[in-house]
Formats: sequence, structure tokens, C-alpha cells
Amino acid sequence: MLQSKLSTKTKREAPKDEMSKNAELLTRGGFIFKEMAGVYSFLPLGLRVLTKINNIIREEMDAIGGQELFLSALQDKSLWEQTNRWSDEVVDIWFKTKLKSGSELGLGFTHEEPLTRIMKDHISSYKDLPTFVYQIQTKFRNEVRARSGLMRGREFLMKDLYSFCKDKEEQENFYEKAKDAYKKIFERVGLGEKTYVTFASGGSFSKYSHEFQTIIPNGEDEIYLCGGCKKVAVNKDIWEEQKKCPECGSELYTEEKSVEVGNIFNLGTKFSESIGLFYKDNEGNSKPVVMGSYGIGPGRVMGTIVEVMCDEKGIVWPESVTPFDVHLIVVGDDEKTKKTADNLYEELKQKKVDVLYDDREASAGQKFADSDLIGIPVRIVVSDKTLKENKFEFKKRNENKFILLNKNELFERFK
Amino acid sequence: MLQSKLSTKTKREAPKDEMSKNAELLTRGGFIFKEMAGVYSFLPLGLRVLTKINNIIREEMDAIGGQELFLSALQDKSLWEQTNRWSDEVVDIWFKTKLKSGSELGLGFTHEEPLTRIMKDHISSYKDLPTFVYQIQTKFRNEVRARSGLMRGREFLMKDLYSFCKDKEEQENFYEKAKDAYKKIFERVGLGEKTYVTFASGGSFSKYSHEFQTIIPNGEDEIYLCGGCKKVAVNKDIWEEQKKCPECGSELYTEEKSVEVGNIFNLGTKFSESIGLFYKDNEGNSKPVVMGSYGIGPGRVMGTIVEVMCDEKGIVWPESVTPFDVHLIVVGDDEKTKKTADNLYEELKQKKVDVLYDDREASAGQKFADSDLIGIPVRIVVSDKTLKENKFEFKKRNENKFILLNKNELFERFK
Repeated sequence: MLQSKLSTKTKREAPKDEMSKNAELLTRGGFIFKEMAGVYSFLPLGLRVLTKINNIIREEMDAIGGQELFLSALQDKSLWEQTNRWSDEVVDIWFKTKLKSGSELGLGFTHEEPLTRIMKDHISSYKDLPTFVYQIQTKFRNEVRARSGLMRGREFLMKDLYSFCKDKEEQENFYEKAKDAYKKIFERVGLGEKTYVTFASGGSFSKYSHEFQTIIPNGEDEIYLCGGCKKVAVNKDIWEEQKKCPECGSELYTEEKSVEVGNIFNLGTKFSESIGLFYKDNEGNSKPVVMGSYGIGPGRVMGTIVEVMCDEKGIVWPESVTPFDVHLIVVGDDEKTKKTADNLYEELKQKKVDVLYDDREASAGQKFADSDLIGIPVRIVVSDKTLKENKFEFKKRNENKFILLNKNELFERFK
Repeated sequence: MLQSKLSTKTKREAPKDEMSKNAELLTRGGFIFKEMAGVYSFLPLGLRVLTKINNIIREEMDAIGGQELFLSALQDKSLWEQTNRWSDEVVDIWFKTKLKSGSELGLGFTHEEPLTRIMKDHISSYKDLPTFVYQIQTKFRNEVRARSGLMRGREFLMKDLYSFCKDKEEQENFYEKAKDAYKKIFERVGLGEKTYVTFASGGSFSKYSHEFQTIIPNGEDEIYLCGGCKKVAVNKDIWEEQKKCPECGSELYTEEKSVEVGNIFNLGTKFSESIGLFYKDNEGNSKPVVMGSYGIGPGRVMGTIVEVMCDEKGIVWPESVTPFDVHLIVVGDDEKTKKTADNLYEELKQKKVDVLYDDREASAGQKFADSDLIGIPVRIVVSDKTLKENKFEFKKRNENKFILLNKNELFERFK
């Protein structure tokens, strides 16, 4: 895409009302717009990143048998009364609204209830189990304090998968598959090294649930990394209770600030019993379906990537989620330089390389500053100077120095 | 996909509370679930159709220079007060809610206001114009009577594109391009023949706006098809005022029931002046940006396709939006038959044909009835009987008779 045609521009100044690095850089780069505290719109660059994150999540959910669906935001009071989660005294983050008739509605902050109700139409026998469905859909949570940019929002996208199994064994088997799928997702989006499977409280059906916690400097959570096996972490509640690693028993630990990027939870039969989702086993006995839920916030993942991978000049996107593969920049007044850059743009496009081409009439300094801010992983500069030697400047966003390549060498990089 | 693994099942009975064909068939087929009047969730089969419709719309919007973004549902009262569209006395379809602090919020029923505000950050000069952005995003409308299944919802997906231009000429030029793109979309989703560009009232900036109206038996709109040029239609308001075709002047007409599947509208400077979106022209004068809006409801398009293309047995999807390309059905008890069908399934998958394979233990009658209800355009039956001649039954959903093909002939159909 031609940068001169891009609907958004960068900003030099950091927004005054944003404290977090992710909100500052994403706003300055033209990725997001703050509608109000905790509510952001995604501009074209931002939606490109978000879509890539969503598609990575989709692929991994599909790979473990997930089927995608899309539930409504508007929620029916009578349904949530069946699980005692309607009252504001029980759930204090509801946004509620009303029909013209006066009937109260809620805006979904999660979807166990409506999905369990839907599955009553489709699950009646053990032959219908197990089944796994997920959505990537907007949640609404009336947080008293929304903060940290994309990290804790009042309106945000969430991938939530729900598993429906015959028994605890089938459920736990899928739970482990989901855990592995989550590890793959965080590796693929570039957060693998800093993200830990973290033991958390399990509710009434399991000893533990698991959070996926990514270490970031200003994280709002605290985790205890095991100093023994060094593989897992423990959240604050569990650490205070046990003072040791549930995996290896070690009492050694280091404390870190972190952000929760995902969680997985055995729900047992809480929702199926309340809402009446039963199946007939192979002997004809009626049994409640055993459920689990598995969440990831794609927007929060995007914010976390920025927090983990930025530098003083801007964002540093991993290749897997970058808005474009290459930032092509033309510098100089020579007509031949412009033409060479135009041709290179067309050739890269033909090779299916997704290029943002900075064809604007702007200074080299402005273009380089914008490029560092936007954070595309590869920058190619076409300038009067290097063209004299028939070379192009090739630089990775996460390296300090550029190298000079001729055209063949350049195309070797995009095989 | 194996139908035995599909998360949903079909229903024999029509839902008691649905009057419209689209809601009845989509519910029975397992495409949608009614959460409440005017609010539907999309189940895996339904989301597959919806995603294909969305992607056709995306391709045509991208082709005319549209850049996709994604705005929030939660809306800021003070912004909508600037255009006098906050009050329930002016706009009577708001859903409103409150923050914990007591501040009122709305749920977006359209997005002119927030998008105009966003673009103030990005448009300042004539060099930034024209620019075109769109989203596929959930709208909320507090209709007193939600009805006709997916046709008039309280919560529904909408593609809304907004154009930002220097002047009326640039705007009208884009408007014509958008009109052509809309025609292509309705052709591609299979509604081309029954969908008419329909003259409607233009508001204060243009004589006309245009609706895209599809003729269906129980449509809630009435249009007047021109009997002269036979190319366009006129909506009720305009017909009563003019009694002739604005395109050719003919006074001949036929009256038809229809549903509005899209509309395009010149907004002029109404929103840019109210919200303060001005640009400097090439002489340095400050001018308001000239805007247009362009809407399509993908869910309503899906409902309309069902209404137009169903028969007494079920849905008849066009190839462009079908949930699967082929419905493969195995019938019979012979182990060899099952194995042949399993192999055919794998081979078709390898050829990138998207197959729903009915591998269930169910009667032939049940399988055929489900197949007709779900409406995949091609059905292949593998049965003991035809395998004796090494043949497969190949039938199109919109034809009455099947033909027998050997394997080579069958694969010829999927080149």
C-alpha cells in the first residue's frame, strides 16, 4: 500500500492521558484511537495486526477441533438468573440496558450461559460428545478503572473456546491439548519466551486452573517463577497458600510483574447442571455435560507484544503479526530514484510481499522516524546515494545497522 | 468436515415463534440460534456463510480503495450531542447504558460521529483526501418490533463504509464507484437478478440517495419497478411524489414487495461541520470535508438469500456463499462402501474441495432430508447400489435429477 494513501498519520506527541507504553505507541503510530477510558477503536494498521493475531488463534483452535461460531452481545436476564450471575451484587461488571418494553438486557462479559443453552439443542447423546466451539467476539466489562491501554478494557475482543465432554477424563485430556495450543499461540505471536504457564486457583471442580502470564515491566499481576524446574510459575494466591512449585516442589522462586494473556479453566458441571445440559450415556443414564473454558484477549496480546518488543523509537513487530512485511522508503529528489522505488514496490507486490511504500513528499528524517515508530520488521531504503552503486539499504527493525544489497541479493531475502 | 463431529444438528420441527422462511430454515438447519426477538447467534454453519459474504464485501470495498478498520460499540454522549443525535426524542432506537460513575453511554446504531472525530486526527490538508474507510461491525438498534428473522434485528452485523472527499465532484465520483461495487456484491452473492438500484430521498445535500432492494414475496418494503427502462426502481416516498422514473421518465411501473439489502447516501458536510472536520485546500482556505456513507447488512443479505433461493425442502445456497462446496453422503451397510466414501472424502480434501461428509449412522432418508435442508449446492452419494457399477451419484441442489459419474468424471467437476 502507498503510505500517501493510508487513511491515518503518525503523531509526534504522546497523548497526555495515556500512561502505558502500548497505548502511547499504538496511538502515535495510528494503530488505535481512544474513544473513552478502556474503549479503543482499531484503525487500519491496528486492525491488520489484530487480524493476524486472530488468525493465528483460529488456526490453533481449529487444529484441536474447535468450531468457530459467533454469539450475540445482548443477553437475556432470565438465562443468567438460572446460574445466579445476573445480580450486580454477584457480578459487578455488567453493562445493562433496556428494551423499549422496559425488559432489562445485559451486554455479555463472557458466554458460558448462552452457549450452554444453545448446546441443549445439539447435545443429547454420548455420541454428540466431545465437542468444542469458540468465537472471537466483543466482550463488555464495566470496570471501575479501565487502564493500561489495551490491557484492561471496558470493551474488548476475546477468543473464548468452550469444551463439552462426557466426563472428567475426556475433559482433562482436552484441557492438556488446549494448554499446548495456547503455548503454540504465544510462541507464534512472539511472546513464547516471556510467557509462563501459571498455576491459579481451580474453583470447585479442579485443584488448579492455569493462566498464561507474560512478564512485562509494568504488569498489574505478580507471579512467582519456579527457581527449580524453571518451567512454570505460580500466581500470588497459590504462592501464598503453598510456598512451593506445584510441578516440582521447589521452594526457590523469583518474583516478576506480569500480564495475564490467557487462561484455561475446568468448569465441571456448574453450568450444565444449572441450565440443564444433560446427555444420555451408552447405558441410557442421564448425566450432566462436563465443561471447560479457554480465553485469550487478542487486543491484550497486541498490547503485550508492544510492551515487550518496543524500544525508545517505537514498536518492533514480530514477523508473524506485523501490519506489513516490508517498509519501503524512497529518499531523494532524483526522478530515477523515485522510478526505481516505484518499480521495486511493484516487483515486491508481485512476489506477494506485503509492502507499505512511503512515497510521501516528506523529509528522510520524518520517514525514518515514522518507520521506527510503526515498527515493520524490515526496512528497505531507495536513495540517490546508494543507487549510484546500484544498491539498496536493507535494515531489520530490531538491528542497529543496515546492509547494502544489490537487487538479486535483496530478492534472495523474500524467497 | 465429518458431519458426525459437527457441533450442531438439524431439527425436524419449525420453531413456533418464527414466521419468516429465513429464520425457520436457518434455525432448523443449525445455522443460527435465536437469543431473543431480533437477536441471533451464528452457529458454525451460519458463521461459514456469513464469513463468505463478509469476504465478498471486503474484496469489493478494497477494490474501490476502502481501508478496513473496527470501531467500538460503546459511544460517548458528548460526541453525539454535537450532531443533536443523542436525545431519544431525536433518535428513538438507541440502546443506552451507564458506567459505574453514572455517565451515560450509547451502543452505536451507526458510526458517522465517532469516525468523523477519528479522522480529525488524520485529515488536515487536501493532500489527505480523498480517503475511504469501512468496517464490518456489530450495530445495536432498539427496534420496538424486531421481525422477519435476520431481516430486522436489534443486534446485527453491518458493513459501513464512509468516504471523505474535498468537494461534491470528488464525492459524487466515488459515489458512482460505490454503486457499481454494490452491484458486483449482490451479483456475487447470487442476488443480482432480483436486486434493483432504487431511488430514495437524498436528504439536504443530494436529490436522491440509493437503496438496493431485493424482490422477495414477504418483503416489508414496497418498490416501483420502472416499466420503461426496466433497470431501476423507485421507493414508495419518491414514487408518490414524482409518479415517474427518475432515470428514463417513464410512468409505467410494477409494484413489488422487497427488502432493503444496502443503501448509499451523500452526507455532504453535515457531520464534518458539526464535529469540526475541516481541511486546508491548495490555496490555504479551510473547508469542511464532504462525506458519504455506504451500508450493507451481511446478516440481512444471508436472510435474503435464503428467502429468494429456498424451496419446500430447505435452503439452496449459491456456490459463492455455501458453508461447504460439497455434501458427501454415504448410504449402505457394506464395509467397502464406507471405505470408498472415506477415501473420496480424503481425495476431495486434497483437491481443496471443502466437503461436509455425512458419515453418521443414520437412515438414507434422514441424510437426504438434512442435505436438502442445509442446502449445499452439490451432493455426492456413495451407496452399495451404485458402487456395483463403480459409479457415484452427483446431484445439484437446484436440480431435480442426479446423474451417475465414475470417479474420473466426478473429479472433472472439481478442476
